[in-house]
This record gives sequence, structure tokens and C-alpha cells, in this order.
Amino acid sequence: MIASIKLPKRVRIVEVGPRDGLQNEPVALSWQDRTQFIDLLSAAGFSAIEAGAFVKPSLVPQMADTGDVLKAIQRNLGVRYPVLVPNAKGLQLAVESGAQEIAVFAAASESFSQKNINMTIEQSLANYAEVVAQAKGAGLWVRAYVSTAFDCPYEGAVPVKAVSSVANQLGKIGADEIAIGDTIGTATPARVSKLTDSLLRVIPPERLAYHFHDTRGMAAANVLTAMLHGIWIFDSSAAGLGGCPFAPGAAGNLASEDLLYMLSEMGIETGVDIEKLTEASRFVLEKLHRPAASRTLQAILSK
Amino acid sequence: MIASIKLPKRVRIVEVGPRDGLQNEPVALSWQDRTQFIDLLSAAGFSAIEAGAFVKPSLVPQMADTGDVLKAIQRNLGVRYPVLVPNAKGLQLAVESGAQEIAVFAAASESFSQKNINMTIEQSLANYAEVVAQAKGAGLWVRAYVSTAFDCPYEGAVPVKAVSSVANQLGKIGADEIAIGDTIGTATPARVSKLTDSLLRVIPPERLAYHFHDTRGMAAANVLTAMLHGIWIFDSSAAGLGGCPFAPGAAGNLASEDLLYMLSEMGIETGVDIEKLTEASRFVLEKLHRPAASRTLQAILSK
Repeated sequence: MIASIKLPKRVRIVEVGPRDGLQNEPVALSWQDRTQFIDLLSAAGFSAIEAGAFVKPSLVPQMADTGDVLKAIQRNLGVRYPVLVPNAKGLQLAVESGAQEIAVFAAASESFSQKNINMTIEQSLANYAEVVAQAKGAGLWVRAYVSTAFDCPYEGAVPVKAVSSVANQLGKIGADEIAIGDTIGTATPARVSKLTDSLLRVIPPERLAYHFHDTRGMAAANVLTAMLHGIWIFDSSAAGLGGCPFAPGAAGNLASEDLLYMLSEMGIETGVDIEKLTEASRFVLEKLHRPAASRTLQAILSK
Repeated sequence: MIASIKLPKRVRIVEVGPRDGLQNEPVALSWQDRTQFIDLLSAAGFSAIEAGAFVKPSLVPQMADTGDVLKAIQRNLGVRYPVLVPNAKGLQLAVESGAQEIAVFAAASESFSQKNINMTIEQSLANYAEVVAQAKGAGLWVRAYVSTAFDCPYEGAVPVKAVSSVANQLGKIGADEIAIGDTIGTATPARVSKLTDSLLRVIPPERLAYHFHDTRGMAAANVLTAMLHGIWIFDSSAAGLGGCPFAPGAAGNLASEDLLYMLSEMGIETGVDIEKLTEASRFVLEKLHRPAASRTLQAILSK
């Protein structure tokens, strides 16, 4: 590659389709279908698969019965299956269902934090400090999201310092991995570069992940930029699930197929098998009655 | 940006929507509509707009009456309006219509050359040597495409040496600018890096352009990679025109809106106004009765 530039030899892909993807789809799948989807993704070789969320089914019907999903999936050794928990009650339900990994969800923008989880950033960090302490006490592994890390739909540009500060605090309360989210898909390489420089001053790369959306077609370029900075953990979603279903082809999460295509063509190992991933994506797209939002998957399926 | 890496301060975007884009759409627009589209693109600030092709209207009805387009457009000083010419007859028609710039079209893969233009690579270069000599004699500026520069639909991977060799020969016969085409959209950053290293040994960056397709969502990452190597001329198509219209959202050419979004957010000048570009794209999408294949444009239009 480019002279004097080092790229990672191996990248860990965190497959977020069964949670972040499905949660943003209009059709709610049964826990049985979600279980099968996760098992197909495990078979494809992902080493981390976001499995669901313990949130109110009245508010988020797509994530109902996550406990049943957790009990039914065929756990592969060495694979993490984090579930989103908003509070101590969610943690309790997760533990009762056999969860070994959880995820918590903070924001870098004050307005987004208040509108999305009804807490100030400070309140949310205090809440998560307790949840994470309990989780770590129970031997669980903890992932923490920082949403609106580039732009907030209410406030616009979010300062790099605000993002680093929230990420740093999540690290200090014990989160094992911190995923930096480009919630509305406005990140570009220059901003990724600047933010990563700042984040790496407070969090080592083995605890840092990026969660890009492909809303403006920038996700692959952003991943490349982050890799040039030494980042090697990235979130993506099978078939690009999670896009706005009302705009045909509009993108949500970076599609796992697109990410995998770039990495495998660059000789970067992921452990993921594209054919088995395609099988998982075909399965879920059929259940959702929607076309793929992954350009690579569209190219594969149109053959 | 990344330490010790230099990015260009200014990028020249070659807008190929009116030719490469429209030629691959199922609906053939009238020469009047194509003229208006080009005038809207001129107003948006592009410094190069591919205006049409002098090819058989029985084979390519989308490009019929290109002579009328050339005569009717409002030429802006400093803007190039190249038209594709396959041979001496095409050149004659172009000159008669007032063309000041032409483009010729070679391939790096033997099978593609024979199936696409019915000549071996050697025959095509001999043909273009005459066409380019005549064009230069008439004071015209010449662009040359090298298609299938990464993969060929018939042969698979095309060797870097084959691409460099064809590009080098096109340079020697007098082409002012050589556009390297990722015809089936399979390029990835590692391959772009390798090919660019090879190309820059035979052609200086001010004569080298990349023409990426976004079939697998890699176009922005490929542009970024090429810029890191010092390339600063890129082709793109308003609204992402030229994608397969039968797969909703499937991408053809890199969309000008997506390219512009990345560059402007990185502080790289292009001279193009996104609002005026959106106006041009809205106009042509309405005429084609199709949705945008540009993710950035979808994001803008969904607001």
C-alpha cells in the first residue's frame, strides 16, 4: 500500500445487524427468526454479534423477547454476543437470560442524550457507572457506544473534545470496548482523522471501535482512514440493515458485505466467509421483504 | 489529516453524467433536455463536462443528436466539453459541430476491447493514433479512457502492466489526459495504490484521472487512496447516473454529490456548488423517472 503507511493485518468486525440493524427496520421479526439470523452470522465467522436489546417492547417491538433469543442461539466459543441494556433492570434481565456481554449507549451531544435516553450526558454516565460496575462484578464484558460522535441531528457539529471526554469517562467506568458512532452518517475522512488523533490520546486502539453509517457513501473511506491511524475494530450490519426503508437504496449502517469486500481485497483477515454471510443476509432480507442496502451484496445477488 | 500525508488542495471533477451516465440509462433524453442538463452542470461550476458521443444512434439512441447538443449549449470559458469519438468519421462530425475537446476509448483487456469496440487493443491504438493526430492538428484537446483497468467481465483481473502499457501508449500518441476506468466497479484501495504507483512511472499526475464506479461502495475510499498518491482529477456522474436501473439503488458511476461531499468536508476545493448540482440532478432524474443513485443526494432530497 502507500509507502510508509501501515495497515492492520487483521480486523475484527462487530456484526450489529441483529440489534442496530433490525431495530431500525419497520418489520419486527420473531425471536425465532432473529435466533436463526444470529446462528447464520455465527456460522459465517463473526467474532462479535450484537444479539438484541433489553428495552421496552412497547417502544421497540423489534427487540421483544431478546431473552428468548439469548437462550436459543447456538453460542460459538470465542464469539461475543452483546445485548444492549439501558439500566440496572435491563442488566438483570440480560444476566437472567445468560448474557455474557452487554452494551450501554451514551451520546456526545447533550440534546441527543436528552431526546434519545431522557438523561443529560452526566446523568447517563452516572447511570452507566452503576450498571457497568454491576456487570463487571458479575463477570460480564462491556461495550459502550458514543453516539453522535460527528454531528447531532439537533445541534449540528459535535466538538472533538466532547466526544473524547465521553469516551474517556466510559473507559474509566470500566467499559472494555468503546464504539464511536457516526449516528447520522456525516463523517468524512478528514474528521475521522482528527477525532481518532484525539481519541487515541485517551483510549488505546484495542479498546476503540468505529461504527460508521453509509448515508453519504463515505463509510469505506472512513474505515480506511481509521485503519491508517491504527484502528482495527469496526461495526457493520449484514445487508446494510438499518437504513431508512422509505428511500429505496438509502443506506444506514455500513454493510458487512461492503466492509468485508474491501478488507479481503486488501489482504486483511477478518475470519468472515462472504458466502455464508450472503446466506445470512438473504435469509433476513426475505423475512423483512426488503432489498439489500449493501452495494456489494446487490452486485452479488444480481449475478 | 494523517501525519506526513499530503492531500491535494484542489481537485478537478470531470462530470460524466451527460455521456457515460445517460448512455447507460434505459430512457433516451432529447437533445434539448441533454443541453439543459449540461447548462445546469456548467452553472454548478464543473470545469469539465462530458457532453455526448458521436456514435451510431441506431446502437446508442441515448447519444443521438450530440451535434445539436454541442451547438446549443452555453459554453463557459475555461470549461471543457469533450465528446466521445470512436473514429475519424466521429471526429469529423465533432469538429463540424464545434467540438473543442474529444475523448477516445481504449481497453486494457483484450476480450473487452474486441467485444466492446470490435478491435484488438493494438488495432484500437493504431486507430486512435490517427484520430488523435488529426484532432491535435485541428487544435483539439484530447482525453483518452482506459477501460477495464482493474477487472474485465470476460477475463477477470487485468495485470497492472497491461494497464500501464495502454495508458503509456495513449500518452505517447498525444492524449492530453488519460482516464483510468474501473469499468465493473471492483477496485479497492490496495489495488488503486498498486496501479497508481505503476502509472505514475509513465504519466505525470496532471495528465492522469481516475474514473471509479461505486458498484461495491468503494469509490470514495478509492478516491482517497488515489489522492494520497497525488492524483487530483476524478470523474463522477451527477446523481450517480449510469447504474443498473433494474436494481433499485444499485450504483454505476461514482456520484458527483458523494465525491463533492467528501472533498468539501475535507477542505479540498472543486469550484462546484452542491445546491446548483442538486438542481441539475433533480432535473435529469425527473426526465429519467428514476430515483437518485447518489447516497448524499438521497440524504439531501429526503430532508
